[in-house]
Amino acid sequence: MTLDLEALYIDLHRHPELSFQEHRTAEVIGRHLLDLGIEHTPGVGRTGTVAVVHGAGPGPTVYLRADMDGLPVLEATGLDYASTARGTDPNGVDVPVMHACGHDMHVTALLGALERLSATRGEWNGTVVGVFQPAEEYGAGSRAMLDDGLFDRFPRPDVVLGQHLTPLPAGWIGVRPGTQMAASDGITVTLYGRGGHGSRPHATVDPIVMAAATIMRLQTVVSREVDPRDVAVVTVGAIHAGLKNNIIPTEATLEMSLRYPNDELREHVLDAVTRIVNAEALASGASEPPTIDTLHTLPATINDEDATARTVAAFERAFGADQVIDPGMFTGSEDVSWFARDAGVPLVFWFWGGHDPHAYATAVAAGTVDSDIPTNHSPYFAPVLHPTIERGVEALVVAAREWLA
Amino acid sequence: MTLDLEALYIDLHRHPELSFQEHRTAEVIGRHLLDLGIEHTPGVGRTGTVAVVHGAGPGPTVYLRADMDGLPVLEATGLDYASTARGTDPNGVDVPVMHACGHDMHVTALLGALERLSATRGEWNGTVVGVFQPAEEYGAGSRAMLDDGLFDRFPRPDVVLGQHLTPLPAGWIGVRPGTQMAASDGITVTLYGRGGHGSRPHATVDPIVMAAATIMRLQTVVSREVDPRDVAVVTVGAIHAGLKNNIIPTEATLEMSLRYPNDELREHVLDAVTRIVNAEALASGASEPPTIDTLHTLPATINDEDATARTVAAFERAFGADQVIDPGMFTGSEDVSWFARDAGVPLVFWFWGGHDPHAYATAVAAGTVDSDIPTNHSPYFAPVLHPTIERGVEALVVAAREWLA
Amino acid sequence: MTLDLEALYIDLHRHPELSFQEHRTAEVIGRHLLDLGIEHTPGVGRTGTVAVVHGAGPGPTVYLRADMDGLPVLEATGLDYASTARGTDPNGVDVPVMHACGHDMHVTALLGALERLSATRGEWNGTVVGVFQPAEEYGAGSRAMLDDGLFDRFPRPDVVLGQHLTPLPAGWIGVRPGTQMAASDGITVTLYGRGGHGSRPHATVDPIVMAAATIMRLQTVVSREVDPRDVAVVTVGAIHAGLKNNIIPTEATLEMSLRYPNDELREHVLDAVTRIVNAEALASGASEPPTIDTLHTLPATINDEDATARTVAAFERAFGADQVIDPGMFTGSEDVSWFARDAGVPLVFWFWGGHDPHAYATAVAAGTVDSDIPTNHSPYFAPVLHPTIERGVEALVVAAREWLA
Amino acid sequence: MTLDLEALYIDLHRHPELSFQEHRTAEVIGRHLLDLGIEHTPGVGRTGTVAVVHGAGPGPTVYLRADMDGLPVLEATGLDYASTARGTDPNGVDVPVMHACGHDMHVTALLGALERLSATRGEWNGTVVGVFQPAEEYGAGSRAMLDDGLFDRFPRPDVVLGQHLTPLPAGWIGVRPGTQMAASDGITVTLYGRGGHGSRPHATVDPIVMAAATIMRLQTVVSREVDPRDVAVVTVGAIHAGLKNNIIPTEATLEMSLRYPNDELREHVLDAVTRIVNAEALASGASEPPTIDTLHTLPATINDEDATARTVAAFERAFGADQVIDPGMFTGSEDVSWFARDAGVPLVFWFWGGHDPHAYATAVAAGTVDSDIPTNHSPYFAPVLHPTIERGVEALVVAAREWLA
Repeated sequence: MTLDLEALYIDLHRHPELSFQEHRTAEVIGRHLLDLGIEHTPGVGRTGTVAVVHGAGPGPTVYLRADMDGLPVLEATGLDYASTARGTDPNGVDVPVMHACGHDMHVTALLGALERLSATRGEWNGTVVGVFQPAEEYGAGSRAMLDDGLFDRFPRPDVVLGQHLTPLPAGWIGVRPGTQMAASDGITVTLYGRGGHGSRPHATVDPIVMAAATIMRLQTVVSREVDPRDVAVVTVGAIHAGLKNNIIPTEATLEMSLRYPNDELREHVLDAVTRIVNAEALASGASEPPTIDTLHTLPATINDEDATARTVAAFERAFGADQVIDPGMFTGSEDVSWFARDAGVPLVFWFWGGHDPHAYATAVAAGTVDSDIPTNHSPYFAPVLHPTIERGVEALVVAAREWLA
Repeated sequence: MTLDLEALYIDLHRHPELSFQEHRTAEVIGRHLLDLGIEHTPGVGRTGTVAVVHGAGPGPTVYLRADMDGLPVLEATGLDYASTARGTDPNGVDVPVMHACGHDMHVTALLGALERLSATRGEWNGTVVGVFQPAEEYGAGSRAMLDDGLFDRFPRPDVVLGQHLTPLPAGWIGVRPGTQMAASDGITVTLYGRGGHGSRPHATVDPIVMAAATIMRLQTVVSREVDPRDVAVVTVGAIHAGLKNNIIPTEATLEMSLRYPNDELREHVLDAVTRIVNAEALASGASEPPTIDTLHTLPATINDEDATARTVAAFERAFGADQVIDPGMFTGSEDVSWFARDAGVPLVFWFWGGHDPHAYATAVAAGTVDSDIPTNHSPYFAPVLHPTIERGVEALVVAAREWLA
Repeated sequence: MTLDLEALYIDLHRHPELSFQEHRTAEVIGRHLLDLGIEHTPGVGRTGTVAVVHGAGPGPTVYLRADMDGLPVLEATGLDYASTARGTDPNGVDVPVMHACGHDMHVTALLGALERLSATRGEWNGTVVGVFQPAEEYGAGSRAMLDDGLFDRFPRPDVVLGQHLTPLPAGWIGVRPGTQMAASDGITVTLYGRGGHGSRPHATVDPIVMAAATIMRLQTVVSREVDPRDVAVVTVGAIHAGLKNNIIPTEATLEMSLRYPNDELREHVLDAVTRIVNAEALASGASEPPTIDTLHTLPATINDEDATARTVAAFERAFGADQVIDPGMFTGSEDVSWFARDAGVPLVFWFWGGHDPHAYATAVAAGTVDSDIPTNHSPYFAPVLHPTIERGVEALVVAAREWLA
Repeated sequence: MTLDLEALYIDLHRHPELSFQEHRTAEVIGRHLLDLGIEHTPGVGRTGTVAVVHGAGPGPTVYLRADMDGLPVLEATGLDYASTARGTDPNGVDVPVMHACGHDMHVTALLGALERLSATRGEWNGTVVGVFQPAEEYGAGSRAMLDDGLFDRFPRPDVVLGQHLTPLPAGWIGVRPGTQMAASDGITVTLYGRGGHGSRPHATVDPIVMAAATIMRLQTVVSREVDPRDVAVVTVGAIHAGLKNNIIPTEATLEMSLRYPNDELREHVLDAVTRIVNAEALASGASEPPTIDTLHTLPATINDEDATARTVAAFERAFGADQVIDPGMFTGSEDVSWFARDAGVPLVFWFWGGHDPHAYATAVAAGTVDSDIPTNHSPYFAPVLHPTIERGVEALVVAAREWLA
C-alpha cells in the first residue's frame, strides 16, 4: 500500500499538539510505519519515535530528522483544514494550537522519504535512521532523545540531515555552508516590585512601569551596543503582570528570545541584557533584584562545508541549479545541531519552500515580501500542498542517497 | 444567641470570593441573619442580600451598606487564618483570592450592627436597611442591586451610610465633608500589532514594544499634563501579551485604572490617554488602531456637608474628638455613591482604622508609613481584630441612631 | 516732578537684562530715585539698589521688595515696545532677553510706591526700605544682598512685603496665608558616555540615549512616587549634547527644576531623581557616574498667618472684597523668603493681576485659561498697562501703610 | 628640496579648521606645492585646491583625493602637538576643533605622493590630479568642487582613488570590492511644543519630553524594523533645547545621522524615522508637526570590482599579502563617490591603518578593540606617525602607478 501524503498532512495539520504532548502525532507516525513495515521505536525522548531502515549491505548511517510539535497560535488561515485544536501550556493555561511552523510538513515528508527509501532498499547500502523529534519549539527535544540513549539504542550517525519548511517559493531549496541559523537563548526575566492599590502608586514599586522602561531600554542593545554589521535579535515575546486594573501587582514576567551568530556576540548581548534588567530595577527603587532564568540554549546551526557542497551538488543535479539558492543566514534557531555535535559528525540542514511561487513573485515585484508573505510562527502560515510535499520527500531522498550510494 | 464576631470574621477571611461569586459569603450572611431573626432577601443584584429591621415606630429609613467581595491577590500575611482560596476570574483564569481590601470586616461589622440595632429596636424609630453588596471591586455591584429593583422591593433610603476599613490606627475614624474619594474609570486598552517569529521582528509590528512605549508615555499625563496641584492617577494594573518567548504576538492588553476628583479633570485625562494610546500605535506603524473599552465608571464619593457634620458630631461624642480625623481625599474609588445618587439623598461614607496603633505610631515616627504599613489591596493587608471589629460595629450603630433617634 | 510710570515701564520692558547684569536697570532706578530725592545705595549684592524713606517719627521698618532681572526668552508678543535685546548667558552663549516674568512691572510699581510714600512721609511713622533685588531668576539675588551686609548697612525689617505680577485679571490681588509658593531646587545633571563616530555606536556609550531614557524615567517620580494628593514638579528645562549629527558626544547636560511644598517631599523627590539618574547611567554601561550640581535652593514662600490676615483686610478695605482672592498655592518659587527668614520676621507676598479682565473672563467661560492665557516665562507674556501699574503701586502703599500707620 | 612630512603633519594637526573654513590648510598646501613646483589652483569649491602633474606622455587621468577639514571635538589625546584650536560652527557657536578623523594625515600623504610622482614623472604616462577637498564632514565638499567646474577646468578622471586613515594597525591596508561604505543622510528634526514656566507643565507642551520619547522610539527602527541581517544605523548626534532650568522651551532640535547600504533600506529607514517623529509629536499633543530638514545625502561608497582587484594586487605586491585585508563594509559614509559617479568612472577607496600595531594586537588578544582603540571622531584619536605617514604616501603612489604605467 502507498501513503496518501496529502491526506496525512491535512490530518496532522488539523491536529497539532504542543511540545512533549505529541501523543496523537506519534501514534499517526507509528501506524503508518507499521503499515509500511518499517522497524520503529516510540517513546524515545518522551514523545519521539525512531525508525530504522537497512539497505542492501553495510554502509554509512544517515540520520533524517523531522520535528513534530505545534505552537500556541490561533490559526487564522481560513483553510478548510485549519486547526481548531486547544492545548494546555506549561503554565497550565489553555491555549490554541497550530502547526504554524510547518512541522506537520516535516513529518509528512520524512514518512514519504522513509517509504521511498524502504521501497528501494535493494538499491543502496548503509542505514537510514528516521528521527521524529518532539519539542523543537522548546529547544528541548533533541537533548531529550540523546539523553534517552539515542546513540546507544540505535545506530550512531555518520551524517545528520534535516530540513525546514520556509516561505520561499514551493520547489526551491535554500542552503548555505557555515552558519545557517543563529544561536539562541530563551530566558525568563522576573521583575519584582511592591504591590498595592492602584490609586496609591506612591506606596508601591510599580513592576509594570519597571517592565516598560526595561523593554524600551532593551531596544538599545541592538540599536546601540551591537556592531551594525553583526546580526543580533533581542525579542520580548511575552509579558505578563497583574490580574486587575486597580491592583498594582508585585511582579512582572518577560519571556525573551535572544539570537546571535556566535558565542562572542552571545556573551556581549547576554551581558547587556543582564546589565539593563538590573539597572532598571534599581531605577525603580526595587528592593529585590530581578531573576533571569534560562529556558533553553540553542547552539548555532552550522552546516559542514564539505557535506553541504556535496548535498548542494546532488540537489542541483536533481532539481536544477536555478531551484537551489543560498538563502543567507537565518536568525531563527534549531536544536537539530545536538545530534551532529554529540556524534561529532557533519550536519547539513536546508530549507525548502512552501509558498505559492506566483504569489511570491508578485510580492517580490511589489517589494512587499516582508509584509505580505506570512512567515513561520504567523497565524497565517499556510504552505501550498504541491509541490511542497513532493519536494520535501525528494530532498530527503536525494540527500540521503548521496551518502548511501 | 449572640454572634461571635471574631469567629465570623476569621471564617469570612479564610473564604474570600471574587466579585459576583460571593455565594458562600451570602450563605454565611443569610444563616446569621436567620439566627438573629432578621428579615432578609438573598439574590438581590445576583449575590447581594438585603436585611430590613423596623424600629418601634415610623421614622426615616437608613441604609447601612457593606460590600462583600475579595480580590485576586495571593495572601502573604502569614496569618494562621490566611486565605488559600482560589477562584476563576472573568477571563477564565485560575487565580488566588484574598480579602485584601477588608470587605470581610465590613460584612462582620454590619452583621454586628444589625444584631445590636435589632436587639434595641424598641429604642428607636424608623427603618434600618442592611445592604450586603456584591462586586464592589468591579464597580458593578451597587448598580446591579439598583437595577434589580432595590428601591421598589425595599424601603427607599433617607440617608445612605457606609464605611471602609483602612490602615489608620484601630479605633480611629476618618471622614471629611465633600469629596471623600475620587471618581474613577476602569478601561481596557487593546493594542494591535502584527505577529510573527521572534527572530524576524522586521516582518512584524511588535505589540509589546508598542505597549512599553505607551506605558512610558502615559506617565506624562500625570507628570506633565495635569496641574501639579490637582489629584490624578493613571495606573496600568495589568498587562498581558504573548504566549511564548519566540513568537511575537499580535496584540497586547492593558488594564488601566484612572482617577480624578471631578468631571473636568476626568475628561482631560481620558482625552490625553486616548491621544497617547492612538499616537503610539501610529508610531509603531500599526495598521489597526487600538480599542479602548470602559469596564466601569465610578463617580466621586461626595459626602453631604450637613449630614457629615451631624455624623462627625455623633462620632466625637461617642469616641472622643481625638479619634475622629479628616483623612483628606482618598484617590481610591467606590460605587456606594449610586445608592445615594439614585435616591437623591445624602451620603456619609467614612473610614475606620484597623492597624495596630503602636506599630502605626512607630512608622509615623520613623517616616515609614508609606513603605511599612500595608495598604488596601496589598497581599500583606492584615487588620488587627480588636478593637477593629468593635469600632466598626459601634460606628454603624452610632451613625444610624443619629437618624433613628 | 512726577514719575511717568507708563513711560518708565515701557522703557524697562524694552531693555531687559539678565540676572546680575541689571546695570542699565539699576541706572534707571537710581536716576529716578535721585529725581525724587530719595536716599539710595546702588551696588548692594552686585547690581541691587536699596532706597530708604523715613516717616514723620519712629516706627517699624517695612521692606518693600521688587526684583529686577529679565529672562533668556525671545519675545513674541508683537507689542510696539517688545524687547529685541540680547544678552550673554553664564555659558557665554548669546541669547535673546525678555521681561517675560513681569519684573519690569515690579520695579515700576515699587518706584511709584516710593514716590507716593515719600510724598506723604508726614502722614506715617517708621521707615520704608525699597529693596530692588537682582537675579531672582537665578534664585541668587536676595542671598547676594544679604551677604553684602544688607542688615548691617540698612535698617533691619520688622516685616517683609513683596508682590508678583501674574496672569489674573488686572485689578485682582491673590494672596493666601501659609505656603504661597513652592520650595525649589535648580540642578544640573551631567551624564557621561563615551564619544565616537556616529556610524559606530557599538564602540561608544551614547549619552543622548542615556539622557532620553533618564528623562522618560524621571516622569515616573511625579506619576508613581509622589502621593497624588501632594504637589511636586520635576521639569527638565534644558538639554544640551553634541555638536554634530555624525559624532556621538561624550556627555549630555540636563538643567532641571524641582518643586515641592515642604522639606519632606523635597528629600523624597531629590532621592528619587538621584536614584534614577545613577541607575540610568548604569543601564547604559557608563564607566563614570553622573554628576548632580545644585544651582540654587529656594525655600518655600510661606506667608505669616497673622500678617497676611492684616494685609488682606487692608486690601479688601481699599479695593473691595471681590478683588481679593485666595489663588491657592503656586508651584513657582521665589527667593524673597530669605529676607524674612534671616531677619526672623513675618513675610507677606502677594500676586497681582495684569491680564485684560475681559479676555480672562472669556477664557474662563471657554475653559481655555491654561492654553489661551500666556503665563509667566512665556514669550507671549504681556500685561495690560492699566490698571496694572496703578494697582501695583496702590497695593504696596496700602500694605506698607498698614504697618506704618 | 624635500618635504618634511612629519613636521607637516604635526603643523596640520595643531591647526585644524572646520568645514569650508580650511583657509590656513589651503595656504599650507599651496606653499608646499609651490616649493615642489607643482601646478595648482586654490579656491576650487570655496577652500579646495587642485594640483596637476603631467607624466612623460599621454595616458589616463588618475584622481588622488584627500579631504582637509577638522571636527568640532575637544582633543583629549594629551599629545605634545594636540590641537587647542577653536572655531565658529554654522550656528555661530564657538567650538573646539580637532583633526579627529585623520584628514591631516590624508593631506600629508597626498602632498608626499604628489612630491614622489612629480619627482618621477619621467617614469610614467598620463596625468595625476591631486584633489584637496574641503568640507567632507559636511558631506558637501566634493559637490562644491564639482559645481565649481572641476571637470571643465581640469582634466576629467579615468579613475578616482582615495584613502582614509582608520584605527587598523599601522602598515595595514583594508579594501573591499563593492560596497565599502554606507550611504548616509544627515537630517535635522525640529520638534515644536509650547513653552512656559517650568513650574506649570500643564500649561505647556514639553518639547524635551517629546524629544526624549522620540529618541527612545527611534531605537526601535534598528531593533525592530530592520532585518537583523541588514546594516543600518540611526544616530542622534546632537540634541539642543532650552536655555534655563525653569523655563520649558518651545522647541527641541535633534541632529541625526542615518546610514544604510542601499537605497531600498534608506527609504525604509527614512519612512520609519518620519513616521515616529510625527507620531511622537501627536502623542505630546503638539499643535504643529515637526520639521525634518536634510543636511546632506551621501551615496554608498562602492568600489569598482575590477579596479579594486587590480589595486589590491598592486598593494599585495608592494606591501605583502598579509598587510592587505578585506575590512568588511564600514558604516561610515563619504562624499568621495561623487567624483566617480559624476564622471562615470571606477572608484577605489581604501583604508590604511594608523594604530600602534603592538597596542592593537594586545587589544585584540584582550577582546577590547571596541573599547580600547579610539575610533575616528573620538577625542582620543591619535595615529602613530610612523609608518603611517610612509604607508599613506606609498599606497597612493602604488595605486596611481598601476594606472599610469
